[in-house]
Amino acid sequence: MPTSASLDATFQALSDPTRRAILARLAQGEASVMELAEPFAMSQPAISKHLKVLENAGLVSRGRDAQRRPCKLEAQPLAEATGWLIEYRKYWEAQYERLDDLLDELKRLEAMTGKT
Amino acid sequence: MPTSASLDATFQALSDPTRRAILARLAQGEASVMELAEPFAMSQPAISKHLKVLENAGLVSRGRDAQRRPCKLEAQPLAEATGWLIEYRKYWEAQYERLDDLLDELKRLEAMTGKT
Repeated sequence: MPTSASLDATFQALSDPTRRAILARLAQGEASVMELAEPFAMSQPAISKHLKVLENAGLVSRGRDAQRRPCKLEAQPLAEATGWLIEYRKYWEAQYERLDDLLDELKRLEAMTGKT
Repeated sequence: MPTSASLDATFQALSDPTRRAILARLAQGEASVMELAEPFAMSQPAISKHLKVLENAGLVSRGRDAQRRPCKLEAQPLAEATGWLIEYRKYWEAQYERLDDLLDELKRLEAMTGKT
């Protein structure tokens, strides 16, 4: 089970739109800080600050290439956060209007990972 | 789709262990602020401050009973946050050691809601 502190750090890291956009970019593949900064019209130091939050939460790791130090998505904290949220699934039943879409999504996940 | 600001508020609200514990308590049923404060050995004003964050994120609503104003879990933002996280599912495949447990959990969700 994830520790309380690791969930704190994960949810804190996810509470910012730029950090979520960085994760979405890294989901497409590794990128340098310079490559990450481009689409955001943000300075590299500003991006580096967000990256530090993501690194501290274990959501991003940095490669060893000294010049580029590419950033890489580390998905385990996302799975742990999902694991916490999934506990509340039965409260969606009555309340969540997009439940059908979400269930279809979960079904695709199962099919994809071969657990049918 | 949830707005970026609503995801910001949801993840921010979830980044604190007391607030997550309050949601876990409310998942058992409605409770007054006094009832919520008891197990935490926290003052009512301290709990009220956390409740305000949860209310602003739409995760808790307050009843109209003027004396008690019972707090109630509102699960839709949790479902929306899960919907965001689920997009990263394929990155767990290689990385998440508890994937099997999570998939079992998702399978139970499907079975429970009758989408088999």
